Amino acid sequence: MTAHTHPRELRRLFRHGELVRPTAGLAEGYVQANLVMLPKDLAFDFLLFCHRNPKPCPVLEVLEPGQHEPRLTAPGADVRTDAPLYRVFRDGVPAGEEQEVTRLWREDLVTFLLGCSFTFEGAMTKAGIPLRHVEQGRNVSMYRTNVPTTPAGAFHGPLVVSMRPVAAKDLVKAVEVTGRYPKVHGAPVYMGDPKGLGIRDLSKPDYGDPVDVRPGETPVFWACGVTPQAVALESKPPLMITHAPGHMFITDLRDEELASQ
Amino acid sequence: MTAHTHPRELRRLFRHGELVRPTAGLAEGYVQANLVMLPKDLAFDFLLFCHRNPKPCPVLEVLEPGQHEPRLTAPGADVRTDAPLYRVFRDGVPAGEEQEVTRLWREDLVTFLLGCSFTFEGAMTKAGIPLRHVEQGRNVSMYRTNVPTTPAGAFHGPLVVSMRPVAAKDLVKAVEVTGRYPKVHGAPVYMGDPKGLGIRDLSKPDYGDPVDVRPGETPVFWACGVTPQAVALESKPPLMITHAPGHMFITDLRDEELASQ
Repeated sequence: MTAHTHPRELRRLFRHGELVRPTAGLAEGYVQANLVMLPKDLAFDFLLFCHRNPKPCPVLEVLEPGQHEPRLTAPGADVRTDAPLYRVFRDGVPAGEEQEVTRLWREDLVTFLLGCSFTFEGAMTKAGIPLRHVEQGRNVSMYRTNVPTTPAGAFHGPLVVSMRPVAAKDLVKAVEVTGRYPKVHGAPVYMGDPKGLGIRDLSKPDYGDPVDVRPGETPVFWACGVTPQAVALESKPPLMITHAPGHMFITDLRDEELASQ
Repeated sequence: MTAHTHPRELRRLFRHGELVRPTAGLAEGYVQANLVMLPKDLAFDFLLFCHRNPKPCPVLEVLEPGQHEPRLTAPGADVRTDAPLYRVFRDGVPAGEEQEVTRLWREDLVTFLLGCSFTFEGAMTKAGIPLRHVEQGRNVSMYRTNVPTTPAGAFHGPLVVSMRPVAAKDLVKAVEVTGRYPKVHGAPVYMGDPKGLGIRDLSKPDYGDPVDVRPGETPVFWACGVTPQAVALESKPPLMITHAPGHMFITDLRDEELASQ
């Protein structure tokens, strides 16, 4: 298994429990997705929330109630078994991790596949912009901000952002390169003094690991795929299933298919 | 009342029944919208249909159940009274036109505002591309095609397109100019021989009026805002309220706010 193993083969390994690991670095060039599964009676509110907040919640595909094959992004796959690891939440409280969720499946569950920053990170690397958290072998730093999302029905809460330090010479390029990928969070939401987002201490991220910001570098903040999970939890849905952080669902889409013209 | 009357004033005239007319040519430079009101239990399916078919159904704003003020696109307005004329459908069958629908309002109704081609027609005119149907004082020609939309839940049916004849020298420009406006149908879906869309006779449109296609001109087809109405009817919702054709809801958004970068 290498960075060039095809998504179909990786999903087969995940399905049979032959591989359980974070998906960073796997299936290079293929789109990875955040998973959110919710009961039908919350699905309109959540889809509307995504529509109103396209930067943190870019919708790649929505499966109809009870459907578990993502026909548009990974035909033949099964969202109940083909991510490496799942998280289950009951009434908004974490209730364990599972390698597959077939036993928990209900005919009223609606599955959302949302874009993930792995796609634009690949584009940044190709453009010659270094990624500090990758260099340091860490998870990206993520922070709750004081920026509210636009509420929809039961869903409301703060925007969560990821941060990558960028050298002055690369700042414009970082905006341009990631701006080409609106389906995976797109251009940054902010750059510069973290206080502008209500972040007090960059060295204490709310999720992920701290990474070094060096002299001459500016912290650049992108809307983050953790937002929908954080926000969904505020509504305390009776059942919500997501992928486990970093253990994404790998689709058959190529990164370039998500680039805007 | 002129092309430069502000949307707020026009909506006031419509609200009090002081003006009932098609909105083409009114409030120049402001975005006009298709209206679709549906009961909540069909709202997820319809929003998902729009997400899967963004060219015919570009969502500008969705109001939550029972809400009638479009806070994002026309703060202070009321979608129940502020369009010049409404159409009511019961079980998929037309059931009359109304100047306001306050009496029909229900707390479970969800209102969708969808983009309309008036915005990109303004951009075409500014770019020096003539609009035959405007020159001829007619409604644009619209056709059912043999191209299926991507179904979602209860909603399925054929793509409806509008047609504008374009001279050879303007074809590329027509694609580029309208492609800047993905929120109002965007670039054409097709150009050339109408048989490629299953259209037998251009002179017999399914909606609107026939317009002349002259020698040296190519018929160019755009996804059309009639699609969601045509498709919604197939699902025979117990109640659906729309604007009457051509009698759009005028928002406070400027056309340029919908242009992509």
